[in-house]
Parts: sequence; structure tokens; C-alpha cells
Amino acid sequence: MGEGVTEALARIFSVDSELYQGRGFMRRVGFGERPALVNIDLANAWTRPGNPFTCDGMDVIVPGVQRLLGAARAKDIPVVFTTTAYAVTEGPNTDMGLWHLKIPVEVLRLGTDAVAIDERIAPEPGEQVIVKKRASAFHGTFLAGFLRANGVDTVIVTGVTMAGCVRHTVEDAIAEGFRPIVVRECVGDRVAGAVEWNLFDIDAKFGDVEPLGRVLEYLEALGSPHPVRDVAAREALP
Amino acid sequence: MGEGVTEALARIFSVDSELYQGRGFMRRVGFGERPALVNIDLANAWTRPGNPFTCDGMDVIVPGVQRLLGAARAKDIPVVFTTTAYAVTEGPNTDMGLWHLKIPVEVLRLGTDAVAIDERIAPEPGEQVIVKKRASAFHGTFLAGFLRANGVDTVIVTGVTMAGCVRHTVEDAIAEGFRPIVVRECVGDRVAGAVEWNLFDIDAKFGDVEPLGRVLEYLEALGSPHPVRDVAAREALP
Amino acid sequence: MGEGVTEALARIFSVDSELYQGRGFMRRVGFGERPALVNIDLANAWTRPGNPFTCDGMDVIVPGVQRLLGAARAKDIPVVFTTTAYAVTEGPNTDMGLWHLKIPVEVLRLGTDAVAIDERIAPEPGEQVIVKKRASAFHGTFLAGFLRANGVDTVIVTGVTMAGCVRHTVEDAIAEGFRPIVVRECVGDRVAGAVEWNLFDIDAKFGDVEPLGRVLEYLEALGSPHPVRDVAAREALP
Amino acid sequence: MGEGVTEALARIFSVDSELYQGRGFMRRVGFGERPALVNIDLANAWTRPGNPFTCDGMDVIVPGVQRLLGAARAKDIPVVFTTTAYAVTEGPNTDMGLWHLKIPVEVLRLGTDAVAIDERIAPEPGEQVIVKKRASAFHGTFLAGFLRANGVDTVIVTGVTMAGCVRHTVEDAIAEGFRPIVVRECVGDRVAGAVEWNLFDIDAKFGDVEPLGRVLEYLEALGSPHPVRDVAAREALP
Repeated sequence: MGEGVTEALARIFSVDSELYQGRGFMRRVGFGERPALVNIDLANAWTRPGNPFTCDGMDVIVPGVQRLLGAARAKDIPVVFTTTAYAVTEGPNTDMGLWHLKIPVEVLRLGTDAVAIDERIAPEPGEQVIVKKRASAFHGTFLAGFLRANGVDTVIVTGVTMAGCVRHTVEDAIAEGFRPIVVRECVGDRVAGAVEWNLFDIDAKFGDVEPLGRVLEYLEALGSPHPVRDVAAREALP
Repeated sequence: MGEGVTEALARIFSVDSELYQGRGFMRRVGFGERPALVNIDLANAWTRPGNPFTCDGMDVIVPGVQRLLGAARAKDIPVVFTTTAYAVTEGPNTDMGLWHLKIPVEVLRLGTDAVAIDERIAPEPGEQVIVKKRASAFHGTFLAGFLRANGVDTVIVTGVTMAGCVRHTVEDAIAEGFRPIVVRECVGDRVAGAVEWNLFDIDAKFGDVEPLGRVLEYLEALGSPHPVRDVAAREALP
Repeated sequence: MGEGVTEALARIFSVDSELYQGRGFMRRVGFGERPALVNIDLANAWTRPGNPFTCDGMDVIVPGVQRLLGAARAKDIPVVFTTTAYAVTEGPNTDMGLWHLKIPVEVLRLGTDAVAIDERIAPEPGEQVIVKKRASAFHGTFLAGFLRANGVDTVIVTGVTMAGCVRHTVEDAIAEGFRPIVVRECVGDRVAGAVEWNLFDIDAKFGDVEPLGRVLEYLEALGSPHPVRDVAAREALP
Repeated sequence: MGEGVTEALARIFSVDSELYQGRGFMRRVGFGERPALVNIDLANAWTRPGNPFTCDGMDVIVPGVQRLLGAARAKDIPVVFTTTAYAVTEGPNTDMGLWHLKIPVEVLRLGTDAVAIDERIAPEPGEQVIVKKRASAFHGTFLAGFLRANGVDTVIVTGVTMAGCVRHTVEDAIAEGFRPIVVRECVGDRVAGAVEWNLFDIDAKFGDVEPLGRVLEYLEALGSPHPVRDVAAREALP
């Protein structure tokens, strides 16, 4: 892009921020008490070269997610990975819906290596891998019910793409009643500017964009281990 | 149960029907133009002996579903199977939500033979098998979006259990804007009376309960082959 | 109905319960820590005579709900009422969806006295009245997001009808990750048997059916006043 | 902003488009056969001066929507308006969820003039006005079920704000299985750049951005009057 464009975007955001702040937007949703870590589409089609879905920035995103995974696992907080994959990519019975009319989702075939989570950040046994069909991790999946049943109030979001699945997930997260926290260094895209303007919109309206260091401090400051929800039926009365 | 109970239920339904009809309930939703066939939880845990989820009546249900599958495939209408299965059945990260606090869903482990669709009615390539976590085939799944994208207006429902997943699916189907048709001979349960009273409630309020023969005639009367939806982007104007 | 039918239903439930319990169904979901009270369709069309939707048993249901409202308000727990009402009851732009093809929802016109909450249990300022279009209080409404944002984990359900809106609401509640508690004396219907068999199905699979006295004791045993959720943005770190 | 910034954005979009097109993104979803017109938050808080939510560009947006309304009404296609409004804007029982922690939704009180649809584009009797609580017109509302029951396959979207409610609505529309068409001249925002980058993201991934003239031509070319869906129950067989 060149310096000029980065500066141009920064200048737009500066003007926009002034208007937003003057009108009471750009507030902080803040961290809650029971977070979950939700990693969006960090599967090989997005994290490795050579796919239409390949994204940039994995040299920063992957190590950042590794650190978040370490912190989350140390506190036994729920960890979720999503991938986007389809069982039927031709004909009238496809699970792609209408999305292949916009983007090349026909290359994301269920069961292939392309849609498996990148092994550098491989899920451990007992962690959820949700196969979604649409952009949002919430849309047409059991994620909201899963998080609620586990008492989660905060969703820490990483992954790709910023202009697609990450953004839609964050919008849905606050709509569903969860505090969305987007980890600045752990989100990416494949076209210039998309990370910046989508983070700007999100921070103004839908969730807080926070640096990795701050999110790690938050996770480390949680009670250790994070108290496990009592899933046994409780009898409130004798 | 004995003759007395069947008669007792019939007597209740007769009295109730009179009230319903006098008040304008028990109308017909009718068949639409673009059906899909949705088979609920006809996996081995439900269709074979020896599981907590085992249901009765498979000697009638399975042949009935076979006939429906034949008719549906002949017309290229969308065919969906659901099963209920969980990746994590212990600890705080479970996808069972709170349901294991009511019923023994912990035996339904993802990837086991128990949750595979019964091979007597095996899905063919290009048919959808949706793994759900809750009772309704719509809840936390991509079913509604899939059906809408395919232009479906009518959902023909078979499977088990009548008091659980079939009923909740039918309630959601009409809520989502689809015409639910429950095939009388192709639904079952594991406790006495449950099929009867749930079919009664459904026919009164949520969908039409129709005999297998009538549903087969409907499918056979559809244009042959059922016109495939044009999924290519259309340009309305030059 | 006569004594014979009540006995017949009781005999069916007894046999069914034995099978269920032997297989690990009919567990207790239990009371959680942050309840909400959700009253389904206790509007005049259902609670007063002369409407197609009129239900029985209001001499017991209304006083029971009054006691629950008192207990809930004393602890500042969220109180929700639903009603079912339509802005457009004719033509192709109706919000009835397909439901008028089954039941006479065309009499439930938005803004009429028929769909107003019965004044004997009138909502107080600051309580939610949700206008729904379908059976479930969750379907096509903001209820799930509202409850999650307020930290609710338990949904105490009253109202009508048992075979329709109450049942679908309870099924959705557990699917969404909330503990459903149905208050035995505070639910009703308009046809014989429907309350009994639907409570039986729910208690076996979807939520706990509890007597009013026990629910009141639970509410009274909550911390007083129930700690109000901190809705201010929290800064976890300096 | 100045010429420099517009040019800077145009330059970014040009580079990004090249990458997208090379990889198979930016396809056309196209117009379907049964559209609905969905106007997002064109209520006074957004269309008139002096509110924190006031948006720019109403001198173009309002006349454009007037023309679309005329064309839609001439063909009897479903017309929907949304507004965002809250019954309870203080305390733990609020329907704002967590959104007031980011933006000043506490000024959007149900029943006030601020949240009424702008009278220059007033709804006619028989048109739906949906009160939503979140950004998307689909989230927590009956919109998807309404559209499906009416056989709609295409959603023509206008309104504000581009970075918030319009974008989230479009993302949900394609996720739900509808073809989203965003009318270029009929969407707006309140900060610089937001219309441009959000339209760019949408056109790349979620829906088609089309000029008003083309959408009007499409509506005018529909059969006249648009065939009204047969909502009567059909009996497929004698």
C-alpha cells in the first residue's frame, strides 16, 4: 500500500473517532468474569499459502494464538475453534446456501486437509471444533447455546478473515449478550486495509479491540484454576 | 398398555377435537410446491436394540422411510438426515449443554457407530447428514438456511422420538415458515402413548399428520424431475 | 372426562416412567443461581372467557402467578411477559407466517385489549412485555440475548397453552442453555389431558416440573436483594 | 476529508479488487424472483438532525427510498421497516442487552418520536414495522420466518447505518439463504469512509451493491402485479 495510504486511513479514523466520541460511541464493553477463547477459521486453507482463502500475517497471528491457548488452557476456560467446510459442493442439495454465488467456498470440502485446524495451534482433546457454513461462528451453529450453558459472559476472538467471519462473529456475539474482545495482533485478512477499517468499526460499535498483552494479563489474573461450573443438578431446597 | 388405555386416549382426543374444531383450530397447512424430506435421528442408537435411546416400531418405520427415500430421490428433492452426537461428553467444555442433566445424551459420542445413520436407510452421496446437539433439527444447525437457499417450502418429517426431537422439529419448522407434514407411519417413540398424544397436539396446532400413502402420492405427483433451482447468479437486466 | 381417563393417563405415565428411569431419563436439571420469571401469553384472549384462545384454570393460575410475581419483584429478578399479536392479519404481508393455516391467530390483533396482559397480573414499569409471532417465547424474539446479557441461568415458566407456547418455550430454553422450571399450578390449556401429557414429556426430557410452593421457597431463599449484575464496563487491569 | 482521502480509498479498493477477482471472490449473487424491500432504521433519530444517531445524506437517501417504495407497492411485494427501540433503558431488566456499553442506545426509547419511521417515507397500512434490539434486522426478530413464509428469495436493503445495522443485516440475509441487494444511493452513515469500505466488503463477500436505477428497473420488470402467494391450505390430492 505504501505509507500514504496507512496515513490516509489513520487520518480518516482520527476524524471519525472525534465525531463518535462526541456523540457517545466508542465506549468500553469491558472484560467479564467467565471468558471463552474462540478462534475463527485458523485452518490450513486460511493459514497456509496457495489457497484462494490464504490470509496474510500468520507469522504474528499463529504465535499470538499459541500464547492465548496456553493461557486459556492453564485456566480451563472453554476453547473453541471454527472452520468452514461443506459436505456437498455441487448441485441443488448443497450446504453452501447461496454463499458460493459470492465467494469460492466450493474449495472448502469437508474432511480435507484444507479445512483442518492448523496443527501449529491444534485443538486438544476436549476442545470444540465447530464446522460452520456461514461467516459468523454463531450462525447456524450451537455456539451460543454452548457458551450460555457453560456460563460464559465474554468471548475473546482471534482468527480470519477480519472483513468476513471475524466481524460477523463479533457482531453476533454482542447481539447474543456476550462481551466481545478482539485480540489486535491475532486477527488477519487477505486484502489491504480490511483489518484496519473493520477493527475501527468494531471498536466503535460492537466490541473492544485489545492488544494481546492486555488479554494475556486478563487471563492470567483470573482465579487459578478458573472455577469449573457445577454441572450437577442442584437441589436448592431440602 | 391394554385396550382400555388406547380407548381412553381415543376418547380424550375425540372430546378435544370437538372443542378445537368448534374454535377454529385443527386447520390444514397443506402441501407446498417444493418439499424436502427430513429424517430425524434414525441412527443406530435409536433404531437398533440395546441402547438407552432405542425406540419401538422400526419394522414399520424403516420400510416406510425407504419408500419415502425412493420417491424423494426420484424427484431430486433435498434429503436430510439428522443425528445427535457430542464431541465432548465430560467436563466443562461439553457440547451437551445442559441436556445431560435431563437425559443420557452422554452415550451419544461423535464418531461412534451408535450415532451413524442406520444403513438400511443409508444416506447417498450428496445428501445432508446434520449433527445436531439439541432436540430440534433447526436449533443450532444450518437447516433453516439450507432449506431457504434451496427454495424449499414444505418439510416432510419422519423419525424419532415423537415426544422429543420430532415434535420440536415440527414446531420450529412452522415457526420458520415451512409447511410441516408428519408421516403417520414413519414416526416413533419408546414409551406408550407418546406417539399418539404428540401427533394429536401437532395436528391440532403445528403441522399436518398424513398417512404414508398420501405423502407418496404427493411426491409422485410432483413434476418429474422436480425442477432444479437455478443457483447461478441471474442478471435481471442487460 | 371422568375419573376413568385421569386414571388411564396416570397408569400410562406410571409405565412410561418406569422405562424412562430404567434408561436414565427423567433426571433433574435443578435450580440455578440467577433466575428469570417468564409468563407465557397470560393476556386476555387466553385468560378471559369468550375467545377462541380462552383457557381453563385461571382461578388457580392467576393467583399462583401473582405470588410468583411478588416473590420475583422482591428479589429484583428479571420478569418477562409474552403475548402473541399480529400487525397484519390479511394478505401476503402478514406476520402470522403460516400459523393461521393451523390455528385462528387472525383474531390476535396487535393493539387490541385481547392481546394485552391480564390486568390482574399487570406488568410493572421496567418489566419486559415481548410480542411474539410464534409459539416459543424464544423464536424470533430477543429473549435469549436479553437473558444472557442479564446473566440469567434459570427460566421459571408459567402460562398457556401447555400444548403450544409453554411447551415450545421450555424446549427452546434448555436448547439455549437455560435451566427450565415449569410451575405445576401455573400452567394451563383448553383441552383435556394436554396439561398432563405435556408436563409428563417435559419433566422426562426438557425441564423440571415443580410445585408452586417449592418455587416460591427457592425464590425466597435467594440473596436479598438478588445482587444486581454490574453492567458498567469493567477494566480488569490498570 | 478532502480529495486525497477519497482517492486513497479508491486506490486501496482497486488493489484489493484485483486480488479478490484473481481468487474468485466478488461474484454476483443476482436478483431472484420474489423480492422484499427492507428499510433499516430510517426513523427520526437517524434521519433528522440533532440526535447522537443522526446520519448524513438524507437528501439523497429519502427520495431514493420513496422511489423504491413506489415501485414495491406497485407490485405488492412485501415492505418492511425496522427501527431500534427499547422499553427499559435503565437497570438490570433492560432490553439493550450489552449494547449500551458500546453506543448510546439509551436515547432510543420505545414510543418516542425519535424511533418512529420518518414520515416522508411513512409505512402504509399492511406494511411491517419491526422493532429490533440489535444491529441486524434478523437478530432476535421474526424477519426470517416472515420472509420465508411469504416465499421471498431476495432482500433489497436500504437505510442506515452502513457500518452497523445495514452491514449486519446483509451478512445475516445471505446466511439465512436470501439474495441481498444493497441499493447504492439509499444507504448512509455518520462518519467518513464508512459507507465506502462497508459497501466494498459487502460487494466482495455478502451481497450485490447495485445502483438505484437498476433496482428500479428490476422491480418494474417483475410481473404486474407480482403474483400473490397462495396462502390457503392446498390439498394436493382428491
